Amino acid sequence: MNKKIPVAILGANGSVGQRFIQLLENHPWFEVKCLTGSDRSIGKPYAQTCHWILPERMPDAVKGMILKENEEAVKDCQVAFSAMPADQAKEVEVELAASGMAVVSNASSHRMDPDVPILLPEVNPDHTALVNIQRKKHKWKGFIVTNPNCTSTGMTVSLKPLLDAFGIEQVIAVSLQALSGAGYPGVASMDIIDNVVPYIKGEEEKVESEPLKMLGNLSDDHIQNAGFVISAHTNRVAVTDGHTVCVSIKTGRNVKPEDAIEVMRSYTCPEISRELPSSPWPVIAVHDAPDRPQPRLDRAIGGGMTTSVGRMRIDPIMGLKYIVLSHNTVRGAAGGAVFNAELLVQQKLID
Amino acid sequence: MNKKIPVAILGANGSVGQRFIQLLENHPWFEVKCLTGSDRSIGKPYAQTCHWILPERMPDAVKGMILKENEEAVKDCQVAFSAMPADQAKEVEVELAASGMAVVSNASSHRMDPDVPILLPEVNPDHTALVNIQRKKHKWKGFIVTNPNCTSTGMTVSLKPLLDAFGIEQVIAVSLQALSGAGYPGVASMDIIDNVVPYIKGEEEKVESEPLKMLGNLSDDHIQNAGFVISAHTNRVAVTDGHTVCVSIKTGRNVKPEDAIEVMRSYTCPEISRELPSSPWPVIAVHDAPDRPQPRLDRAIGGGMTTSVGRMRIDPIMGLKYIVLSHNTVRGAAGGAVFNAELLVQQKLID
Amino acid sequence: MNKKIPVAILGANGSVGQRFIQLLENHPWFEVKCLTGSDRSIGKPYAQTCHWILPERMPDAVKGMILKENEEAVKDCQVAFSAMPADQAKEVEVELAASGMAVVSNASSHRMDPDVPILLPEVNPDHTALVNIQRKKHKWKGFIVTNPNCTSTGMTVSLKPLLDAFGIEQVIAVSLQALSGAGYPGVASMDIIDNVVPYIKGEEEKVESEPLKMLGNLSDDHIQNAGFVISAHTNRVAVTDGHTVCVSIKTGRNVKPEDAIEVMRSYTCPEISRELPSSPWPVIAVHDAPDRPQPRLDRAIGGGMTTSVGRMRIDPIMGLKYIVLSHNTVRGAAGGAVFNAELLVQQKLID
Amino acid sequence: MNKKIPVAILGANGSVGQRFIQLLENHPWFEVKCLTGSDRSIGKPYAQTCHWILPERMPDAVKGMILKENEEAVKDCQVAFSAMPADQAKEVEVELAASGMAVVSNASSHRMDPDVPILLPEVNPDHTALVNIQRKKHKWKGFIVTNPNCTSTGMTVSLKPLLDAFGIEQVIAVSLQALSGAGYPGVASMDIIDNVVPYIKGEEEKVESEPLKMLGNLSDDHIQNAGFVISAHTNRVAVTDGHTVCVSIKTGRNVKPEDAIEVMRSYTCPEISRELPSSPWPVIAVHDAPDRPQPRLDRAIGGGMTTSVGRMRIDPIMGLKYIVLSHNTVRGAAGGAVFNAELLVQQKLID
Repeated sequence: MNKKIPVAILGANGSVGQRFIQLLENHPWFEVKCLTGSDRSIGKPYAQTCHWILPERMPDAVKGMILKENEEAVKDCQVAFSAMPADQAKEVEVELAASGMAVVSNASSHRMDPDVPILLPEVNPDHTALVNIQRKKHKWKGFIVTNPNCTSTGMTVSLKPLLDAFGIEQVIAVSLQALSGAGYPGVASMDIIDNVVPYIKGEEEKVESEPLKMLGNLSDDHIQNAGFVISAHTNRVAVTDGHTVCVSIKTGRNVKPEDAIEVMRSYTCPEISRELPSSPWPVIAVHDAPDRPQPRLDRAIGGGMTTSVGRMRIDPIMGLKYIVLSHNTVRGAAGGAVFNAELLVQQKLID
Repeated sequence: MNKKIPVAILGANGSVGQRFIQLLENHPWFEVKCLTGSDRSIGKPYAQTCHWILPERMPDAVKGMILKENEEAVKDCQVAFSAMPADQAKEVEVELAASGMAVVSNASSHRMDPDVPILLPEVNPDHTALVNIQRKKHKWKGFIVTNPNCTSTGMTVSLKPLLDAFGIEQVIAVSLQALSGAGYPGVASMDIIDNVVPYIKGEEEKVESEPLKMLGNLSDDHIQNAGFVISAHTNRVAVTDGHTVCVSIKTGRNVKPEDAIEVMRSYTCPEISRELPSSPWPVIAVHDAPDRPQPRLDRAIGGGMTTSVGRMRIDPIMGLKYIVLSHNTVRGAAGGAVFNAELLVQQKLID
Repeated sequence: MNKKIPVAILGANGSVGQRFIQLLENHPWFEVKCLTGSDRSIGKPYAQTCHWILPERMPDAVKGMILKENEEAVKDCQVAFSAMPADQAKEVEVELAASGMAVVSNASSHRMDPDVPILLPEVNPDHTALVNIQRKKHKWKGFIVTNPNCTSTGMTVSLKPLLDAFGIEQVIAVSLQALSGAGYPGVASMDIIDNVVPYIKGEEEKVESEPLKMLGNLSDDHIQNAGFVISAHTNRVAVTDGHTVCVSIKTGRNVKPEDAIEVMRSYTCPEISRELPSSPWPVIAVHDAPDRPQPRLDRAIGGGMTTSVGRMRIDPIMGLKYIVLSHNTVRGAAGGAVFNAELLVQQKLID
Repeated sequence: MNKKIPVAILGANGSVGQRFIQLLENHPWFEVKCLTGSDRSIGKPYAQTCHWILPERMPDAVKGMILKENEEAVKDCQVAFSAMPADQAKEVEVELAASGMAVVSNASSHRMDPDVPILLPEVNPDHTALVNIQRKKHKWKGFIVTNPNCTSTGMTVSLKPLLDAFGIEQVIAVSLQALSGAGYPGVASMDIIDNVVPYIKGEEEKVESEPLKMLGNLSDDHIQNAGFVISAHTNRVAVTDGHTVCVSIKTGRNVKPEDAIEVMRSYTCPEISRELPSSPWPVIAVHDAPDRPQPRLDRAIGGGMTTSVGRMRIDPIMGLKYIVLSHNTVRGAAGGAVFNAELLVQQKLID
């Protein structure tokens, strides 16, 4: 690749927008050329409008970039990474896709549209076939692809090898989710210090539906959802980054924990997504210590792109139970979207 | 009652021992007459050996009490509240029971002994019938009763009305447990700040077995365990007090959430335990707000003796799901044991 | 007192408003008759408009009270406890004072007005003499009194006996402040988990000025500020309630730590404020343990009205140094205002 | 450098030992050849004896290394990085120095020995001249150098340019220290969740003395301490890494904040320590935002080796006040010791 592909970040001031900027800082294929923001920030330099909340410092390259309207992204950029709130994303993403942009979105607005894929390159890179269906149907020059909700992300990666090897009938998932998943300012400190909030608005619905679409099969012009049922409890805990999920699972046939571990440990990305700049290595880190994975200690494995699994053991009701951990703003948000865009480049859907 | 019953606290220096002292400070029926501790503390005044970690100050009455050996408890006291570590409790409690004391224990050592009841006065006050079987079998002058593990406590209280009304087939329980449950010093701060530990040694086994015994039926000379299955995931989170449990439950017949709420809300203690000094009111507080109960806000309801339930809703796999919260060192430990002793007084097993 | 005095709470939905409701629930002299709120909440019952964030449950008596406009407070009430934001309080408090109400405010708007006292009944009950000057000057039927900023509160109580006994020349104060001091939602959780924020807007200015006014002398028609200098650093830490302040102090003459301890330990309220319902006992709790006071363990002493002091020792530069702790929403906000109102009743300025 | 210098880590299992392993993983000059531990761990592979608590995974290279006795370090290694507890370090370090090793210690045992330097290569690289005096006096083949206490570290770096430019008369320092500074298990979680501990044993004495030695001048055969006075309050807060210090300072002459900022911003390492592998860049990061530096956001600047300063402003008593932040286990412990060893190599005291 001789020249980097110019990309825009929509909603650059928010916490996911900041992660996009950080992860794209020295990206070998993409170069940030446009940042968009709310009316309040348009026309001002990024360093002035952004309340930067990430541990690493704001990259110098973006400090002076002037915030633009979303519509302007199309002028200089081929790809739009969308970190917009769902309500705003709904229309803007359609407009940009119509105008010819590859919209790679972290917003939930279009995830469940039948012709929009929810992508995890480790899991379902073939779902990008929906892109052409989408273009044809809407007569768009561009397209929209999405990444899943952050809690669904790690869980779905961990379910894929089990589904392939044994089939799945039922999944009960209980999450302990990090604060960064709520954006900024997000959760009030008085609500979470010395506390747990056993409710996250709209989250259980997403966790119960998105994995089924991602683990479904492409059939003609749509996705046939995977044929199992998920029940979710979602909780907020006092952790900065890293979503932990307790999974109880009924597989299609009786499975020993060591066999489940084996298929997870040996799972690799499909060939098309194996050598991309953001491909996780390993895809799944299986932990032996009885008290792992833990968010503070394990969220950064594989640069935050690896999914961690531990405590695989017999569930007396469901058959198997285990813990899965994933970095919610890296693998589960901005990093996942960048990985999706890399897949699209590899598949020549972006060029 | 003209004169208070003299009681001993075994293991008075630990975090549960401290709660006993606090809860018994102005108890109408019991008076602390003896404190025991480890070899290192014997012979010294309590104020000197105890690193007091509770928010309210150490009661003046105990400051000057000299720590004694466990065996000395029998001299002046009828009742021994045991807050000893399980390994030490095993033998000491037997000795004291043999010598004539009513041992009311928070330790796990004897919970699963067939002739030792695990008591929740709201749930199974009739299980104290084991006391006479125990005495006969071992030729003890006294006896041992126990309260359950702190995570089992609230969950079992919440299961009781459901079991009575609808039957139970399966329960999947995922806990988010407070730090005080691990004693002091317990969990290292570096292990829990910005973190979750998805493992607590020995805990899942207790949560999967103790409720079945408590919800079982007295049959001749033993308890016939309740005939359902529990699967548990237990997690430690950065909360000082209050264990939260996410419950998915398959009842004996199809139940609407509103009917489950109704039987919980209307649940009262059996008559024998309804008017005791520590009887919770209400037994179960059912919360309407979608994000409750929460440990910081709801653990102190009913003086910490009430069990809180919220978010009763349909579980697409199990039928029902909900959240239950209980104060782990009050209802789930020292307060539960005191309540048990009150029941025994009411039943004239202590007098 | 035969009949309770009817009082209003201005800004009842906020965190300080909630504390007022809680502390006034069974107050022997005052009865809450009016709650006011923002435009959005007016006309609705309190239980519906308030996101209650205190550990104890919302008192039943206020659940159905309909929120009113601030101006309506004067209809049924003699006293207005103001928990309004400073910008709104500025005008509203003047209007209500003009209309005849005793405005007892926690807002900062009028604290530095020359004819408005900042009151700590333990310290300067005689400053209520400004009330008559105020009335005369503005031709108000009512009046305004204030309590200090929450960080100044505990510190000023601890300085008073030192000033009386030894004089004060310089004070360097570094605070570690609780989250509840910022109101609700206040500090974002992502800003404080695993973090310290070494800045609180406008706070250092208050800590450097308010104590000087409170410790000043009434002279004719105004307060002559105390003649020493304060320098403050104010920090936010991950604590729910309780402000800790590290004080280094240069007294008027050389003082031994044990003598400083002695004057603090023996400090009592002036007679007029000694037996009021909210009078702290002790006024100052002096801790012997080398690691106390601590917010979680000591903020609730004396019902949250006692000021805790510890670690009195030699400062090689300033002469003395020590730690002071005060409950910021009880002694430092709502509880302090209620105490002020009790003083005004005792002085017959409210009747 | 053709071949890497073989080094030992004494006390490799502790939290500082782990940081040494992490920071030396791919070090260009040093290679870890020996790990030592307590009696309990000797003879076992590191992966088995170490409870690894750092976010990044244990390097593969050390997993199989067999823990040895401290005395064995001398066999294969030239340099011993000491992360031992102070009481054990006292004798062991002397033995190893006598036997010919360059002991580069993080322990406090020998810091105040007159012939042992406390080194910060940014500040006092010339103090290594004590090495030869040491050798001569004790007839050691090797020597001991130390790095300061973690709280003194950042503060001393920030004081150096002020001392050089303006002189210093008095410093009042109040710390908000991270948990990792207490080692592992260190601070109990129940002591710090929703809390502050305003006391750290032995810490204030170190903060009041070590900077004076480091900022002192080499004079004949000893260090002439800097001629100013420090007063310290040290506090523990719920932060994993990163010590924050509030500094009030009286300089030798009246200084404007902007001039103090300027000398800090332009401060560079002495030439000898400017281009070492661990040299921080910048030495001091001066922050403009009013609420910075903050530990979570700024501790990792310069790979954790940079000292952050912010909020430089006028102190009405002392003249100037500011905030300084330093990563306590990187710059303030293991990273500082590695930097010291690099300096010794550069000075040919290690070769």
